[in-house]
Parts: sequence; C-alpha cells; structure tokens
Amino acid sequence: MFRTAELQRKLPKGDYHQQIPQLRQDLLLMQRELREADFPVIVVFAGVDGAGKSETVNRLHEWMDSRWLITRAFGEPSDEERDRPEYWRFWRELPPKGRIALFLSSWYSVPILEHVYGRVGLAEFDERLARIKSFEKTLADDGALILKFWMHLAKDAQGERLRKLEKNPLLHWRISKRDWRHWELYDQFIAAAERTIMKTSTGLAPWKIVEGYDARHRSISVATAIRDAIRFRLEESRTQAASDTAAHLPSPFSPEPGLSPVTILSRLDMDKSLSREDYAAGLKRHQSKLNQLQRSARERRISTILVFEGWDAAGKGGSIRRITTALDARDYQVIQIAAPTDEEAAHNYLWRFWRHLPRAGRVTIFDRSWYGRVLVERIEGFARTREWQRAYAEINDFEAQLVESGIVLMKFWLHVTPDEQLQRFKEREQIAYKAWKLTEEDWRNREHWADYELAVNDLVERTSTRQAPWTLVEANDKRYARVEVLRTLCERLETALADQSKPPK
Amino acid sequence: MFRTAELQRKLPKGDYHQQIPQLRQDLLLMQRELREADFPVIVVFAGVDGAGKSETVNRLHEWMDSRWLITRAFGEPSDEERDRPEYWRFWRELPPKGRIALFLSSWYSVPILEHVYGRVGLAEFDERLARIKSFEKTLADDGALILKFWMHLAKDAQGERLRKLEKNPLLHWRISKRDWRHWELYDQFIAAAERTIMKTSTGLAPWKIVEGYDARHRSISVATAIRDAIRFRLEESRTQAASDTAAHLPSPFSPEPGLSPVTILSRLDMDKSLSREDYAAGLKRHQSKLNQLQRSARERRISTILVFEGWDAAGKGGSIRRITTALDARDYQVIQIAAPTDEEAAHNYLWRFWRHLPRAGRVTIFDRSWYGRVLVERIEGFARTREWQRAYAEINDFEAQLVESGIVLMKFWLHVTPDEQLQRFKEREQIAYKAWKLTEEDWRNREHWADYELAVNDLVERTSTRQAPWTLVEANDKRYARVEVLRTLCERLETALADQSKPPK
Repeated sequence: MFRTAELQRKLPKGDYHQQIPQLRQDLLLMQRELREADFPVIVVFAGVDGAGKSETVNRLHEWMDSRWLITRAFGEPSDEERDRPEYWRFWRELPPKGRIALFLSSWYSVPILEHVYGRVGLAEFDERLARIKSFEKTLADDGALILKFWMHLAKDAQGERLRKLEKNPLLHWRISKRDWRHWELYDQFIAAAERTIMKTSTGLAPWKIVEGYDARHRSISVATAIRDAIRFRLEESRTQAASDTAAHLPSPFSPEPGLSPVTILSRLDMDKSLSREDYAAGLKRHQSKLNQLQRSARERRISTILVFEGWDAAGKGGSIRRITTALDARDYQVIQIAAPTDEEAAHNYLWRFWRHLPRAGRVTIFDRSWYGRVLVERIEGFARTREWQRAYAEINDFEAQLVESGIVLMKFWLHVTPDEQLQRFKEREQIAYKAWKLTEEDWRNREHWADYELAVNDLVERTSTRQAPWTLVEANDKRYARVEVLRTLCERLETALADQSKPPK
Repeated sequence: MFRTAELQRKLPKGDYHQQIPQLRQDLLLMQRELREADFPVIVVFAGVDGAGKSETVNRLHEWMDSRWLITRAFGEPSDEERDRPEYWRFWRELPPKGRIALFLSSWYSVPILEHVYGRVGLAEFDERLARIKSFEKTLADDGALILKFWMHLAKDAQGERLRKLEKNPLLHWRISKRDWRHWELYDQFIAAAERTIMKTSTGLAPWKIVEGYDARHRSISVATAIRDAIRFRLEESRTQAASDTAAHLPSPFSPEPGLSPVTILSRLDMDKSLSREDYAAGLKRHQSKLNQLQRSARERRISTILVFEGWDAAGKGGSIRRITTALDARDYQVIQIAAPTDEEAAHNYLWRFWRHLPRAGRVTIFDRSWYGRVLVERIEGFARTREWQRAYAEINDFEAQLVESGIVLMKFWLHVTPDEQLQRFKEREQIAYKAWKLTEEDWRNREHWADYELAVNDLVERTSTRQAPWTLVEANDKRYARVEVLRTLCERLETALADQSKPPK
C-alpha cells in the first residue's frame, strides 16, 4: 500500500518557489468562498512519526488565512472528557460551517496505538475502526468535507529523519524514547495503518497517502489536494443548489384523507388513570425512591439521560418537574430544545446534544430532543427526505455510544388522544397564565396529527432498541402519566445499579 | 440585620391561591418581554440551610416558562475548572441576554464556608468579598440585572425545620451530618452572612433578605420581587433607549487637525533592525529555548496567555507563527478575534475571552483581544463612552485574576510608523496572495491614526501594570520585531519558572 510513498520524490527549490504564489492565492480565494458555504472541512493528519505532520500544519497556517483555520491536537483527556462517551471530545471541537479544521492526533491515534501495543486485539480494533467510519459518515452525510492524509516514510527514511531531528537544536525535543520505540515497532505500525486505511477509506472520507520524505513535495501535495477537494465541492454545491429545491418542498406525506392507519399508538389503553389518593401516595413513594437511587448513581458515577417527546400539551413539563423535585439541583440539568443558536446551526444537528451530555453521575433531561429530526423536521420539510431517513441510523449510533459509555438512557413518548389535546388547548385559552403556552403552531401541528402518528410509529420501529427502548406513556390522565414516568425511571435505575454491582463475567 | 426575617410570617392558603393566577400571568408576560431585552437576569440564592432555597427555585420553574430559565448549582470543581482562575466556572455559566439564570451555591458559597470553618481569616474573607463585588459590578455595569436573595431562618426555626425534613421520607436525604454541624455553627454563619451582605449589597446588585419560615410566604415574596425588579428594568430600558442614541454617535474624538500629541509610541526608536544573519541565528536560538521553557512550563502546569495588538500590517500573524513553530500543537491555541458569534454577542464582552482561557500548562495566543473595547470600539463608537471608560478597570481586574491564578500574561503592541504601514499596504496590493489581507477597513483605520495613537497611549497608561505590563515592539523591521517578541517571551517564561522554583517565604 505504501510503496508509491517510498520513492523519495523531491521537489527542487526553484520549482517550489515558482509554484507558491499561485497556490497561496488559490488557497485564499478558495477559503474566502468557503466562508459562505454550507459545509465545514475536516482535515485529518495521521501517519508515521517524523513524517512531517505538524510541519505541514504550520505551513498551511502560513499559506492560508488562519482566522478561518482551526488546529486541534488531542492529548490526554481531561476528567470532563473522561466522564463522557469517548467521542465527546471530538464532537466539541468540530468546526462550524465555512471553516477548515486541521486535526493532529485525532480519533485515529488511540485505536492504532493500543492495537500496536497489543492492548487491543484485532476484533476490537475493527470495531473501533467501524465506530470511526460511522462517525465520519454522520458528518459527511451532513455535508462535511473530510480529507485524511496519511504521511508515510520508509523505515530507513524514518530512522534517518529521527536522527536528523535529534541533532537539530531547535527540533530535538520532538524526538523522545517513545519515537524510537515506535520505530522498532515500525512493521506493526504499518500493518495497523494498512488495516486502518483499508477499513476507513470511504468515498465520503478518503485517505490520501503522502510521502513525507521531502518537505517541499509534501507541503505542496497536501495543500494542492486540499485546494482541489474544496474547490470541487464548492463547484458541486453550486450546481446542486438548484436541483435540490424540490427536496425542500413541504411534507413528503400526503396521507389519503380518511385513512386511519393502525399505529403502535392506536393500541395504547388510553383509559388508564389514577385516583387523587393513589397519585399522592405513588408520587411520594417514587420520588423518595428516585432520590435514593440517584444518590447511589451519583456515587457510582452512573449518568442518566432522559428524553421527553410527545404531543403538544401532553404534559412533558409537568412530568419533568415531578422528577426534578426529587433531585439535588447540583445533579441535573433540563435542556429545552428550542431554535438552535447560530453556533449550533453551524454544526451537525447532533452537535448541540453532544454539547449537553452529563458528566459522570449526573442527569440531563431533554425536553424535546434529537428526535425533532424525524418528527417536526420530517413533517414540516425542514429536513430533506434523505436527511431524516438516514437520521434513524445516526441516532441509533449516537445512542449506542451513550449506552456503551455506561449512561442510562430513557426515552418517553407522552401520548394523548386528539380529543384530550383539544380539551387541554381550550383550557389553556381560558386560564390566563396558561394561554401563553398555546401558539398558532400548536393548532397547526394538530392538523398534521396523522403525519405525526405515522412518524412516531416509524420512530418507535426504528429506534426502540434493546439498549435504548421507548416508553410510550398513556397520558390522557396526567396523574397516571406522571407516576408511570417516575415508576419506569426508578425501575430502570434500579436495574442499572444492580447490573453494575454484579461481578463481571 | 435578620430580625425582621424572624417574624414567622405566614401566608394563609386561601390568600396564596388567590394571588397565584395573577402572579403567574405577570411572570410569564414579563418573561416574554424580557426575551427581546438587551440584558440578562442573574438571580442568586444563598442563606441558611433548610430555609427553602431549592424549593423556591423549583416553584419558580413551575410558575415561569422554564425554556428561558436556567438553573445552575456549583459543586466540586472539575479538573478543567481547577486548571483555570476561580471565576472561570461562573463565567462559563452566565446567562445570555433575555434569559434568567437562578444560581444555587454560587460564588458566595466557598468564601462563606471557608470563613465559617476558620480556614480563611477576616482579611482574606474581605478580599474575596471584594472580588465578588467587582465581578458583579462588571456584569451589572454591562446591563445585567442582578438580584440576590438571602433566605433566613432563626436558629430554633432552623433546628425545627431540619428535624421535620429528617422525618419526611421524601426529603430526609436533604439532611446530612453536615447540616447539623452547620446548625451548631449557626452564630458564625450569621456573622459571616451579615458581613457578606453588608459588603456586597450594592445599588447594582442588592441583597434582599427573605424569611424562609413559611413556604407560601417565601415563594410569593421572591417571585414578586423578581417580577417587579425585571418589570422596572424593562420600563427603564424603554425610556432610556431614546436618550441613549447620542452616546452611539461615532467617535467621541475630534482631535484638532495638525495637532500631533506626544504619545508613548512617538518615543520608540523605530530604526531598530536586524541583519538577515542575526535574524536567522536569533530565531533559532530563541525558538529552541522557548521550546524547552514551554515544556518545563507544561510539566509544572504554568499557563501562558499572549495578547497581540498593533496596527494593521504590523506583523502580528508573522510573529505568532514564529512562536507556534517552536511549540507542540497539543500545547497551544491561537484565537483570532473577529466578529463575535451570536452566543458571544449575547454575553458580556469579556465572556468570549474567559471562554478561551488555557488549561494549566498550555498557551493561548490572542490575535487581537479584549483591548478591542478600548481601541476600535472606542474609536468607531461601537462602545459608549462610559462603556469603554470603565473597561480599563474591568480589564485590570480580569488580568489580575489571570495573574493571581498563576498564568503568565504578556501583552505585545506591534508598532509601525504610518509610512511603513503605507508601504506594506502597497506591497500587499501588488502581491496577489497578499491582496486579500488589505481591506477598505484598513484604509479607513489609517485615517484614524491620531485617534488610535491616543487610545494606545491611554491603554498603556491605564493597563500596563506591574503584573501584566505591555511590551511595545518596534516593528518597522519585521526581523527585529519577531526576535524581540521571542526574546521577551523567553525571558518572561524563564523568570516565571525560576520564581516558581523558589521556596515560598
């Protein structure tokens, strides 16, 4: 795989200096155009030690307008990072639309090193590569342009380069015992590199192998590749903009009038209710229990994420307050999902949720969530068909990462019948301090009831996994719904705590 | 001070329920209006354990639209927090304009507790209260509405309440040994509370003492006070908006034509220069040294913040790149200060800088900085006169916090003469890949040269402190400037490392 990168190609100084002015101008013009574009650019540098990764990054900073260039390198994770799923630290550093981010020692570093060191076997290594692939797919599908450069050196050339660096008073610090140890592991590195490139070079996030031997040759080929890839994408998005308008038309759904599909929601027993006394007793019992459970969870660093979705006026806010009352204010945050800020809108739609993941032992409650993508965005046509359709897989992958990192994830759909909703709307109109809760939009959403019901059906079908099941709550009776939510939550937390106490098999 | 809060006032249930609907409606209308307003609301809850702080917060969440309400409670700091100045964690949680944030166990907790426990004497306690006062002043001066509620209970009432909570199966978890220990320290707490309230109750951030005895009385009085204070401010800002327009007029400066004031910049020796050979040698020597120093600093967790200001085309970018080349990409970040994002614009102007403070042992380089407030914002009239005038004190306070937390702070003004700048502008026009660097704005700024020169003079006078001095760099010769920056940086880092090695007196 790397033979073509061991040719010791060199670019003569004269040729180099002749090419630079035009290249720099191209890069700057491209960057200027990119600033207005609807996608970010993610550039990953990986490869053999001493092959010139950071030198190339420095060169790019010199040639481009560094105001729109971000460089990130990941060292040891902080405790805030260790307290969350592995990819949180990468998500928090992703560039917004219109910017280029250069990543050194990225999400590839740890998996490759651990495999080379023999700490991670082949099967697990492949799993981690698969995770990378789906991470990059999520970003690329959303428009991110991903370019990955593998900087290569033959073993001899690497040894020579390390020795040379050691002798350079300015650069010798770059070379440590670790580098020599890695040099001895050269063959294992190359094997791991080949596997990595084979498994993660996709059409949407390709690797380009660059010979690291000659600084001039290397810099020019990386910069040229970046320029061309971004230009190509800019051109593509210009021509595509026109043809895409059709995809932005309102709801792709036009359910036949009168058609009443049998959905999972239609099978709920909406007569479930609780008497005032049972409610008071149930509330007290479960809140008290929840409190104890959360304190244990806190001690044992088990985080919880609760997702609340449901019809307008289904009682999400009331249920959430019955939970938070039982918790210590230091332990939870309620995140209301309204319109995104501009920083949020400039990132992948999942970025704003990654942003709010709880630290170990805490609780985050989402009042509406990432499911907006396959509910309101689907129905109102805010997301294109292919966007919301691939969202199921993206969401499952996101949730799998949460669950794997030890987070207890629960998702509640609060269900009311159209009649009950109408009654609540009317009530809200009457009670002055509730009237604000009722908007034009609520009435409009009601007209799309059948669309939403189908969307909910799909959502349960596609995202109710064993690890992250949906709980459908019959919420025509508020008392029943609140206690049911609390009861389910306690039950789940109890199981999670018990599971953790079991000795590992 | 607290006698009026020991009257055991109660609000009968009937009166309470009669008042609620109107109050809730008022709160919601007020909140809706606030969303469009140009200021955030910061509500601090402190006081005696068991006096109902978190219950009141829960009640407020029930009564208001919790989408626009943020609750934050601060427990043990994370390592990312410990790695930075004490107030970083508070800055990162400040609400944007139009929102209300409720703070439990806020910036008051630790100073009061440490003083009550006897770990912090009176003098240091007063210093910490002074820091709080200036923190709140910075926010309030910028428009933040700050309301502070001290929830009080007499000692007997507190004991009674703790016993009652202990018996309540739902709430007994709230009571720990710590609470009883605090109860025994009641008198010390009250003494500390009195001092705190006396020293930090200002016109802009007043304390209101609330009797915690009766939940209904307490909730209504807090909610009413919040409603009235926000309403009052909203009213005030409406009437003020008209009269303030004058303050937004362009530059308050109209230097007399022909007047050439003697400023500190006019005294620089602008002929300093370096030969090509001396430059190459100096660069190599200092970069190599810088690298060693930064690696020691990293090990010893000493952070560095570099601020670069200067005329357009003075060579800030070039100097910065000569620094970063010598550093490990994992260790530094360059923050280019351009237009703020909307999240940044919705906060105090210092918020975006707090946001980027380095972790212990790292380097953050600001290419332009908080000094924009007293440079471009002053001259272009983006900041009102009173805003930029008070900025000197705010900046000094901010920088004092950085320095006290152990950060090495250096500020460079890169100075070129008008002639040299003109020549560089013309050069940029000629060289295709440099032309982008030259904008209309650059030419416009040139016309304000005299204003800027005065502003720089003021800035040095007001913010060149012993702990955070300005380095004025003669930059007509780029080579000299780059080496001079590197040399100063090395010298300063060396001193900082040596100081840290000395045994404490």
